[in-house]
Amino acid sequence: MNYYSDSMNRLIEELASLPGIGPKSAGRLAFHILDLPEERVKRLADSLVNARSQTRLCKECFNLSDEDVCSICGNPKRDHKLIMVVEEPSDLVAYEKTGQYNGVYHVLHGAVNPMNGVRPENLKLKELLTRLAKEDVEEVIVATNSTVEGEATALWISKYVKQAGIRVTRIASGVPVGGALEYVDEMTLYRALEGRTEL
Amino acid sequence: MNYYSDSMNRLIEELASLPGIGPKSAGRLAFHILDLPEERVKRLADSLVNARSQTRLCKECFNLSDEDVCSICGNPKRDHKLIMVVEEPSDLVAYEKTGQYNGVYHVLHGAVNPMNGVRPENLKLKELLTRLAKEDVEEVIVATNSTVEGEATALWISKYVKQAGIRVTRIASGVPVGGALEYVDEMTLYRALEGRTEL
Repeated sequence: MNYYSDSMNRLIEELASLPGIGPKSAGRLAFHILDLPEERVKRLADSLVNARSQTRLCKECFNLSDEDVCSICGNPKRDHKLIMVVEEPSDLVAYEKTGQYNGVYHVLHGAVNPMNGVRPENLKLKELLTRLAKEDVEEVIVATNSTVEGEATALWISKYVKQAGIRVTRIASGVPVGGALEYVDEMTLYRALEGRTEL
Repeated sequence: MNYYSDSMNRLIEELASLPGIGPKSAGRLAFHILDLPEERVKRLADSLVNARSQTRLCKECFNLSDEDVCSICGNPKRDHKLIMVVEEPSDLVAYEKTGQYNGVYHVLHGAVNPMNGVRPENLKLKELLTRLAKEDVEEVIVATNSTVEGEATALWISKYVKQAGIRVTRIASGVPVGGALEYVDEMTLYRALEGRTEL
């Protein structure tokens, strides 16, 4: 690819290395960048560097944060006796977007996956147990993914949280809202049946 | 969107402002950026700023270039008596990728479009005529798009180039290679018929 100027080639190469951006879209993006005011490009570049350098993990819940303690853990209006355990910061964001959860979180940064060498000690699990011993927690909601790894992690957590004498619950599995039964897989249908509630 | 830390929110906002990147992909990209080594992020940011600040237009053909004269115009092995006129730098790149063209280019930076207020004087057309008067040019190949605007621009160019006593040609319109006739539109079929050549 020596069809562009050197600086354009470098830009296209860098953009194309990002996930979901192929050489064609990288080219289109690069031409778009050239049309932007210089100050807008500077702002985009700064936001990249700043996000990477300023973001650290909240020392309470291991959510992404610009401060030592994230805005959720630092919010006195949230219910600190209720901890939702999630695999990734993006899962936390998904629950925050519902606007229906008022407790705090604990981000594991992964799920137990022996095949890929992810063992309980590679996750923020010890930190969860330390939190439970130190703080006055009433319930731990396990919201790991509904995958083999997520379920295994959920079992592991439930064992230790029960030992600590704290209530532990799992988010429901079932038919997605708006989902037509005929397109839902059998395992989900089975779970939906098992988890049925009184009308 | 106040679910992320401030620096992440800013990054996602900046990424989502780029064409073809929605809020979801912006979020995914942002999480990817956090996982990259700090030095890689710095390199990406620098490539953005550098491409924007270093890129200028070649003073001969108005192609994008890091230098005063682009690598094509500066190449003595290219045939400087043959000028291909294209609308955009990306069109030039498309022809360079064929590897079959050894002349030089002239980039108009648009096509005549009175509806959008693009008139001949807004394009690099005067510069083309100056070039033709100054240099020893044998043929001008008009490779503007096969759109209404591209065709109008081609007519406009042909008039002035003929006046200058220089040969002017237009790239062929016809059935795309690999294209099945049944899926080709009528106008293209008509052009293919008109432009038929001896076998």
